[in-house]
Amino acid sequence: MRKGVSTESYKGVRDFYPEDKFIQNYIFNVWKGSLESFGYEQYDASILELTDLYKNKTSQEIVNEQTYTFKDRGDRDVTLRPEMTPTIARMIAARKRELQFPLRWFSIPNLFRYERPQKGRLREHWQLNADLFGLEGLEADLEMIQIAYTILKNFGLNDDQFEIRINNRKLLNKTFKDLGLNEIESHELSRLLDKKAKLSEEDFNFKIKELIGKEIKLNIQPDETIIALKDKLALRGITNVVFVPEMTRGFDYYTSTIFEVFDTNPENNRSLFGGGRYDDLLDIFDAEKVPAVGFGMGDVMLRETLATYDLLPKFISNTDLMLCPLNDAFYNVAADWAGHFREEGLNVAVDYSGKKIGDQIKKADKRNIPYVLCIGQDEADKDKVTLKELSTGKEKKMARKKVSSFILKERFGN
Amino acid sequence: MRKGVSTESYKGVRDFYPEDKFIQNYIFNVWKGSLESFGYEQYDASILELTDLYKNKTSQEIVNEQTYTFKDRGDRDVTLRPEMTPTIARMIAARKRELQFPLRWFSIPNLFRYERPQKGRLREHWQLNADLFGLEGLEADLEMIQIAYTILKNFGLNDDQFEIRINNRKLLNKTFKDLGLNEIESHELSRLLDKKAKLSEEDFNFKIKELIGKEIKLNIQPDETIIALKDKLALRGITNVVFVPEMTRGFDYYTSTIFEVFDTNPENNRSLFGGGRYDDLLDIFDAEKVPAVGFGMGDVMLRETLATYDLLPKFISNTDLMLCPLNDAFYNVAADWAGHFREEGLNVAVDYSGKKIGDQIKKADKRNIPYVLCIGQDEADKDKVTLKELSTGKEKKMARKKVSSFILKERFGN
Repeated sequence: MRKGVSTESYKGVRDFYPEDKFIQNYIFNVWKGSLESFGYEQYDASILELTDLYKNKTSQEIVNEQTYTFKDRGDRDVTLRPEMTPTIARMIAARKRELQFPLRWFSIPNLFRYERPQKGRLREHWQLNADLFGLEGLEADLEMIQIAYTILKNFGLNDDQFEIRINNRKLLNKTFKDLGLNEIESHELSRLLDKKAKLSEEDFNFKIKELIGKEIKLNIQPDETIIALKDKLALRGITNVVFVPEMTRGFDYYTSTIFEVFDTNPENNRSLFGGGRYDDLLDIFDAEKVPAVGFGMGDVMLRETLATYDLLPKFISNTDLMLCPLNDAFYNVAADWAGHFREEGLNVAVDYSGKKIGDQIKKADKRNIPYVLCIGQDEADKDKVTLKELSTGKEKKMARKKVSSFILKERFGN
Repeated sequence: MRKGVSTESYKGVRDFYPEDKFIQNYIFNVWKGSLESFGYEQYDASILELTDLYKNKTSQEIVNEQTYTFKDRGDRDVTLRPEMTPTIARMIAARKRELQFPLRWFSIPNLFRYERPQKGRLREHWQLNADLFGLEGLEADLEMIQIAYTILKNFGLNDDQFEIRINNRKLLNKTFKDLGLNEIESHELSRLLDKKAKLSEEDFNFKIKELIGKEIKLNIQPDETIIALKDKLALRGITNVVFVPEMTRGFDYYTSTIFEVFDTNPENNRSLFGGGRYDDLLDIFDAEKVPAVGFGMGDVMLRETLATYDLLPKFISNTDLMLCPLNDAFYNVAADWAGHFREEGLNVAVDYSGKKIGDQIKKADKRNIPYVLCIGQDEADKDKVTLKELSTGKEKKMARKKVSSFILKERFGN
């Protein structure tokens, strides 16, 4: 046997100990509950995709530099998915005739990017993907922004802790056309606008001049669609919405409405996530157009944001009760009682360590288990127990049959 | 743009359309609920591990032939985890001093093996891993087998549809020693025993003679531990247990109790999953011993088994209600009502297709949504609605405020 193998995880990925998984499950459950409340259904796929799926972008950057791509033993090029959209596009193109449009679908995939790990960006992260397929028009865009808003509210954020920035690619494209730019120049200007917040006004203007050959003052006014979108969002109680004409979103596939959610915390002012409409999604499969609008929300950034606003839940054990037998003569009684409690809906562990009762109770407390119940001759004979609540130290005598309903009522109110 | 990209998934992995994800979620939920009822906590990790973690087995086979292993762009050897045990061993070794033993932990990871896809074995599958760390003795083994049994019962299987085969590696080792075999011969005989069911008696005896140089009649009797384990399982109501002395389980790390669950269906007679005790787990990290017992249960095999016994649930939409506005003049009313219904606990979608009401209702029915509610001028004015149940066609008039409680009671009885 070789010895001394490292206990560290691979760089840029995370181990989830129970306290971490508790937080991850909380995030996933809020995502799932929010999406299902809007009538969305969950789908999923493998992380392994043929590399071909990612080779069709205007930019080759993703496949060449930032993905985990390798040859399998059958000499096929395989990629660990860096995003979910090509996968869902593939799945929809494959069953386009059978599926009942419009589709409201969501997924919580893990995604992989080979880049230097940094705050908010890891090599593996999980991302909620929500999409509405087969519906043109503003109502779908509106619903998608409403869902993004509802999720943040469900996590406990207030309207003044984030803002929703909206824009429209068509408006940008019209501006480029009015300026007389060709496709390549438009693309370059689009990239430049994306970086505007990171540049000084001087630098920005200099780069514009460099790009188009003259100084211009961009003065883009909201069009009818933007105004209608803002009005309708307000009607649904969503008023923390701002029109940001220079926002382009990185991906090339957006075709009209785009939006981005910003953290307004001055110490953490940044884009949290975003999405938009992308109607040309199925082009690469030679399939007919399907209108689509969607967004993605990553777990790393979200968790950091919730932490800055102190909105992450405290770890509580899913185990309701620890049974502490006085010694091994009571193991069978404990196992029998545990079986009955489980049937009544409790999560119950039995301490088989053989340690003293006091030590058993201490250990249960350290594990954040809320209740313990000790079993000796008296309890076994009389079927009467003393239930101890560890957070308060309070003890309560009751018939064994009352234990489950008592705990369920105390913990969950039913 | 390149055209004509294939819509097929990578070979040997699965796409999960909503109907498939529904089944997968069902399986995951039963696993999670069963494990939590025994006081187990969920953990998780990345699928990416340094290849080093798998290089310490006696057999080099796994790393060389059956894993997805590649060099990352930093020239590190990376492997997509083929099993979860090395990962959990790594995590425990890394925090051995802080963790509160015994640990009751479970996880539902996806695992990867590069092999020819066949019935019941894919290149990616999900596997429940349940482990109890830090507890020696029979009670832990017993609990693990009881959990395996409880899970199958929770999926609806009867005692006569499966049997639990038990054995003990120590008993095998003693037999090998009594036969005067050295370590290599013991290992060979162990492999041969593992294949016994697939060989004719003649072939088996011939191979034994070839291996040990003489004909022997193996006649292994259960020892005290096996007998005690069977008795205690019977005390907990688990009687479909058989002692199978030639069962060895493939992995080298088992050190005493081993068990395997067999499907007793004559047309599907095969091992479903198994586990056992493996106390030398942390050796490779130079860490002190931690007694451990656990098992793994794969989703592919389980799903096939549940299908043969007709135990898979029928697909039902998580969406409770579809709102069907007469035309776009009622979109705002529909969105407003949907918001209220969601706050009251319903999952609600709104049909913005602009199609005729009859078509909207048909579509909701095809999507397995149980209720629809149409919104026209009358409904908007009077705040009174007609709720239609699609499975029966029954209609019921009620105040809009009664809708949520009515549907929740009908669907979930509360």
